[in-house]
Amino acid sequence: MSSYRAPLSDMRFVLFDVLGAQSLLARLGFEDATRDVVDAVLEEGARFTETVLAPLNRIGDEAGCSYDQASGAVTTPPGFRQAYSQYVEGGWAGLVSPVQFGGQGLPHAAGVPLKEMIDAANLAWGNFPLLSHGATEALLHHGEPWQQEAFLKPIVEGRWTGTMCLTEPHCGTDLGLLKTRAVPQPDDSHAITGTKIFITAGEHDFTENIVHLVLARLPDAPAGSKGISLFIVPKIKVDRSGAMGERNAVRCGALEHKMGIHGSATCVMNFDDAQGWLIGEPNKGLMAMFTMMNTARLAVGLQGLGLSDRAYQNALRYARERLQMRSLSGARFPDKPADPIIVHPDVRRMLLTQKALVEGGRALGYHAASLVDIISHGEDADECAQADALLGFVTPIVKACLTEWGVECTYHALQCFGGHGYIAEHGMEQLARDARITTLYEGTTGIQALDLVGRKIMQLQGAGLRVFLRMIEEFCAANEGNAAVAEFIAPLRASAAEWQQLTMTIGQRAVANAEEVGAAAYDYLFYSGYVALAYWWARSVAAADGSSHPQGFKDAKRETARFYFARLLPRTLAHKAAIESGVGPLLGLDAGHFDA
Amino acid sequence: MSSYRAPLSDMRFVLFDVLGAQSLLARLGFEDATRDVVDAVLEEGARFTETVLAPLNRIGDEAGCSYDQASGAVTTPPGFRQAYSQYVEGGWAGLVSPVQFGGQGLPHAAGVPLKEMIDAANLAWGNFPLLSHGATEALLHHGEPWQQEAFLKPIVEGRWTGTMCLTEPHCGTDLGLLKTRAVPQPDDSHAITGTKIFITAGEHDFTENIVHLVLARLPDAPAGSKGISLFIVPKIKVDRSGAMGERNAVRCGALEHKMGIHGSATCVMNFDDAQGWLIGEPNKGLMAMFTMMNTARLAVGLQGLGLSDRAYQNALRYARERLQMRSLSGARFPDKPADPIIVHPDVRRMLLTQKALVEGGRALGYHAASLVDIISHGEDADECAQADALLGFVTPIVKACLTEWGVECTYHALQCFGGHGYIAEHGMEQLARDARITTLYEGTTGIQALDLVGRKIMQLQGAGLRVFLRMIEEFCAANEGNAAVAEFIAPLRASAAEWQQLTMTIGQRAVANAEEVGAAAYDYLFYSGYVALAYWWARSVAAADGSSHPQGFKDAKRETARFYFARLLPRTLAHKAAIESGVGPLLGLDAGHFDA
Repeated sequence: MSSYRAPLSDMRFVLFDVLGAQSLLARLGFEDATRDVVDAVLEEGARFTETVLAPLNRIGDEAGCSYDQASGAVTTPPGFRQAYSQYVEGGWAGLVSPVQFGGQGLPHAAGVPLKEMIDAANLAWGNFPLLSHGATEALLHHGEPWQQEAFLKPIVEGRWTGTMCLTEPHCGTDLGLLKTRAVPQPDDSHAITGTKIFITAGEHDFTENIVHLVLARLPDAPAGSKGISLFIVPKIKVDRSGAMGERNAVRCGALEHKMGIHGSATCVMNFDDAQGWLIGEPNKGLMAMFTMMNTARLAVGLQGLGLSDRAYQNALRYARERLQMRSLSGARFPDKPADPIIVHPDVRRMLLTQKALVEGGRALGYHAASLVDIISHGEDADECAQADALLGFVTPIVKACLTEWGVECTYHALQCFGGHGYIAEHGMEQLARDARITTLYEGTTGIQALDLVGRKIMQLQGAGLRVFLRMIEEFCAANEGNAAVAEFIAPLRASAAEWQQLTMTIGQRAVANAEEVGAAAYDYLFYSGYVALAYWWARSVAAADGSSHPQGFKDAKRETARFYFARLLPRTLAHKAAIESGVGPLLGLDAGHFDA
Repeated sequence: MSSYRAPLSDMRFVLFDVLGAQSLLARLGFEDATRDVVDAVLEEGARFTETVLAPLNRIGDEAGCSYDQASGAVTTPPGFRQAYSQYVEGGWAGLVSPVQFGGQGLPHAAGVPLKEMIDAANLAWGNFPLLSHGATEALLHHGEPWQQEAFLKPIVEGRWTGTMCLTEPHCGTDLGLLKTRAVPQPDDSHAITGTKIFITAGEHDFTENIVHLVLARLPDAPAGSKGISLFIVPKIKVDRSGAMGERNAVRCGALEHKMGIHGSATCVMNFDDAQGWLIGEPNKGLMAMFTMMNTARLAVGLQGLGLSDRAYQNALRYARERLQMRSLSGARFPDKPADPIIVHPDVRRMLLTQKALVEGGRALGYHAASLVDIISHGEDADECAQADALLGFVTPIVKACLTEWGVECTYHALQCFGGHGYIAEHGMEQLARDARITTLYEGTTGIQALDLVGRKIMQLQGAGLRVFLRMIEEFCAANEGNAAVAEFIAPLRASAAEWQQLTMTIGQRAVANAEEVGAAAYDYLFYSGYVALAYWWARSVAAADGSSHPQGFKDAKRETARFYFARLLPRTLAHKAAIESGVGPLLGLDAGHFDA
């Protein structure tokens, strides 16, 4: 089985040394989020995830969830339910939720390492509370007071969980096609009828009630995505006073059989005149849902990060233990029957790729979480506006890059094990299977790329990119004379200039032909991700240099940054060439002639 | 479930139009391998694989193999055994084996499409006959006459199957560490004792006997890889007359639980003073095993190709059927609720990547098979020597690139399905899980890369590369004035020149520091693979242009080649930068500081 240790040292480094969380959070008015409190959250989170969740990871994969056709009930894997009770008792459910609804009101910057630990320890289990966070966001921003009292509080307390019911068999990305209907009832509720698929945590045995947030059409709704409304549909009916009543007409119809995350209940949900309550404005449901989705996209990015880190930890341990062949320049450990495989440059290539993507990705992801705190608690309107633009810009990058890098890191880690990586007992293949979902749900990588180029660059005229470029230039200017990072400044500046240039190229072409957006999107997203990581690596080296960390830590950051700039940043060359080749090579082939 | 149709049209195109198999085989003296015969093999192979093997693919994944602890017996999935009987009855087992041992003596060029079809239809099943081919090679080249009579003939006829028993728990890549012992007996046999793991088809219910080829150490053997001998160890003892006797002391101890290829029996094999017969010279077992391994490596490359093609076929079908969103430049099918996703440039990017890698990879792989025929049947010593050097050079490229591209293609294909790709019922996730083994067994990708740079470039001084470069230059010179391929000649020549230059750079650095071989290996292998594919794409366009295929076929080849040159060949830029960065960024970090 694969093991997991929460990387507290690097988490603290990113939070406090790279992002300056201590002064940032004080400035934002998070009075309770002192360094001591955040440290305690990290320590206790590590204990919970390492000792409670991580040991259930393989059990969850092997046992999976089971479904009872007669009752529609779902039983989660052994231990999952008890772990959830401990999670609730530990006060984790409402960690970053507002105090007025029973939460602890801690900043997202403090919640994000816990999220990473949960995902690394047990991704399948982590999906149950994850979906509650989505529901919390929607209820916070769009719920009426009685809805917040009746539905939000129990979710924040962890007594109930939430879901997001979007997808239908014929529509996922294109929600404008959805068919679920909502018919107004005399008591101001709506009767919801339809079938939703791929509903994570749609049914389970953790809590007595489940709050579904369901997209559906009102009778007079306009066609397409402008005619979609959002409804609260509880598993057990709840009246306006918050009292639970009888069973609602919503039922799990089946569980999906999936490649991985077997411990997550992925449900087909049937609504049959179920009682639902409109949340937010009629026909504005898609907008309300996007509130949840942006949070969820950052969260899924962290799933990729967590799995990458766990995979890396195990590959590193194996590479130090496994003796095979001699170093090409002569035996390093002549007293052993062979050298540990970590001596081989090609094994180091795989390990360093993981290390560079994990630690760089952590800075990228945690920074996004800190932007959420600035937006919600900042007092300077200009700072908030810039943070908002930047967050919108980096959200698809965090989601797509951290998940695709998750697939890559679990791939390399498995590969380090050779044939043993393919065998279930080492646990590496589970990490690879689990990681595979993250590039699909909450919008595929292709959809993230379209969001980045179509919306954040074209529609919003690259406002977020400008903030990012300014951040890079400020860093470079401030570190002109800093010997610790001197070697990285010129390549970083060159990348930033090229990034800007490529963006303009795409923008100009897209004005002439809208298909250029789709043609450039994927490669532009990864181009952006690699330049962003170059920035975070340079900043990490500078932060380490200016910190009180031991020399070995500083050396490791510098050498990993060197590896990153030498071996991973050049991937931008291929993405740049693909972008520059434009839409022509993608549209030349007639759709009828794709068969050989 | 995923479907499969053998791509006969492109198989014929590669064999006859690109590789000129008809005249080549006639020249090599394969009198029976006329175009009609090869066509019949293709047609009949398509029928067998599409109707018998393909429908068992998902059944094999779901049922897997089962093991009986008491008897050590292995039961294969429902239908597998019957399919093997049909395979034997159809005369497929000995298709490319010599007539004198009961084979049909057809060329490898005719056998390779069948191999691809089997792998695409049912990879797990295909592993049973695959291992027999390895045993056939070893017995053909190293067996004594009585061994060939007693063991080879039944394998060629398909009555028995073979295995390769190399790996032990503590050694896979580094066979010099192996511990299995062979003690000489008075009757000239040896008593074999040890444990082998990851033995494909080590035990099953297809045939009455199984012939294990086992690496072990003689009592007086030198240490390391120079003290390894190869032994024939049948499941049921066989005397020198070929008569079967009692059960031998070899037993399956367990089946591995794997990520994929559940229908393949991956066995722990325990030898407990089992009767074995030395094959080849004492202490030269590793060399004899390499005879099998090179064939097996090409075969595993074809597994990657087969899975890629099956994945592509299904992704293409889905992309034509699935309606989601409108084309960014306006609705293409206004009468439908949405456009089929094949209109979107990003979906086309994924489809064209698969198409370019599949069809280009087919030319690369089939060409390697034709080299095997030249080496075994050619009469011109110089031609044979060049084919041998070229085959040695391209074997690690075929193995590593076609399998890594298999992982990539199954990845893209799954991604085209969105969330539906993650669900078992569509069969895409099985293809991804099955593909994952191919980059591990028969030498990981890293080992292929070391073979390419350490042995084929450094030790053999790049003899095979020189043949490849000459082939490219001859093609370019012959097509100077060919308008059909004019656009590809200059970039192909530039790539070839850069390939040569990079090779010299690596060679020079490696003389100074042997670690440079390991540092460059992986990126050099992929660099080589992409240039090789550029050559095969240019040749394919030229071959299509000069053929009698319909214009749509010619257009498809040209447009796919354009996509390849514009969007995939630029991956060489990143590989080149990584190679040029040398060993420094890989060795800078102390092994003790890889932890964050």
